[in-house]
Amino acid sequence: MELDKAITERRSIRSYTSKDVPQKLIDEALELASWAPSAGNLQSRDFIVIRNQQTKDDLVVAALGQEFIAQAPVVIVAIANLERVAHYADRGKELYAIQDSAAAVQNLMLALHARGLGTVWVGAFDEKEARRVLGLPAHAKPVAILPIGYPAEHPEPRMHLPPEEYIHLEEW
Amino acid sequence: MELDKAITERRSIRSYTSKDVPQKLIDEALELASWAPSAGNLQSRDFIVIRNQQTKDDLVVAALGQEFIAQAPVVIVAIANLERVAHYADRGKELYAIQDSAAAVQNLMLALHARGLGTVWVGAFDEKEARRVLGLPAHAKPVAILPIGYPAEHPEPRMHLPPEEYIHLEEW
Repeated sequence: MELDKAITERRSIRSYTSKDVPQKLIDEALELASWAPSAGNLQSRDFIVIRNQQTKDDLVVAALGQEFIAQAPVVIVAIANLERVAHYADRGKELYAIQDSAAAVQNLMLALHARGLGTVWVGAFDEKEARRVLGLPAHAKPVAILPIGYPAEHPEPRMHLPPEEYIHLEEW
Repeated sequence: MELDKAITERRSIRSYTSKDVPQKLIDEALELASWAPSAGNLQSRDFIVIRNQQTKDDLVVAALGQEFIAQAPVVIVAIANLERVAHYADRGKELYAIQDSAAAVQNLMLALHARGLGTVWVGAFDEKEARRVLGLPAHAKPVAILPIGYPAEHPEPRMHLPPEEYIHLEEW
């Protein structure tokens, strides 16, 4: 799929068919995620791939009742790896690891869309509860929950800010 | 350009030819950046497009001497807009706005690459100095400096972590 098309036709998908998601497509998308740039090429991000129904159900609770998470055949949780970025001290933990994981998630979402799969970036969850469910050590910060499946909905594009609201010339 | 190719053939480019960069390509890439998902669709990110040489020179100082910034025909500074994300309080400012801007930067970098342009994600800079140079208010947090030009170098791909180091099955 063309890049521009992948970017503009991707939607946030919160409803999935029961069709199974081949692991091969997940592996390909995660490999493409790993091509995103990262501070010092430290790649301070991890991904947990979940198919176990109980874990998905527990993630719904962590995500304050977002039921569609449990309906996705696969759920990926993106992690900022604060140990791998430790070289950069506070800036690494508070900025770079968040950015590195986010850039990788964006690649992942585009790669899934190009393979006919839908997902949505869930950021609203209780971090402590997600840590408990996934057995995360202190240096593994969960930053996004991504339910993945074949789309059972086809939403219209969301409103975009007009360029003059987010683009500035030469200075603020 | 195909998505997978854009993702895997993009490189961090720190050397640029003197060839001018058409504003049309910058505008297209920024429009594609705006398609990245964001928390509550608040699009808590801004971009400053810089062609003024003095500003670029000042950004080199803010970026601790990374001279290649001043050699790029265009520099874009990505901003996390903490005012636009205020609805989400601390989680919005410390996580969502950083992620939303990072996801948009990733789209931007891929879109530039697909148009024959090179860039690099510069994260190492003095935030206070960058704020001064660009006249940023308190709610505008600079999160990345992106020098942009036609590539004068063609680097090999960087090392990637093997999948078993960053992919976990079912739990950590």
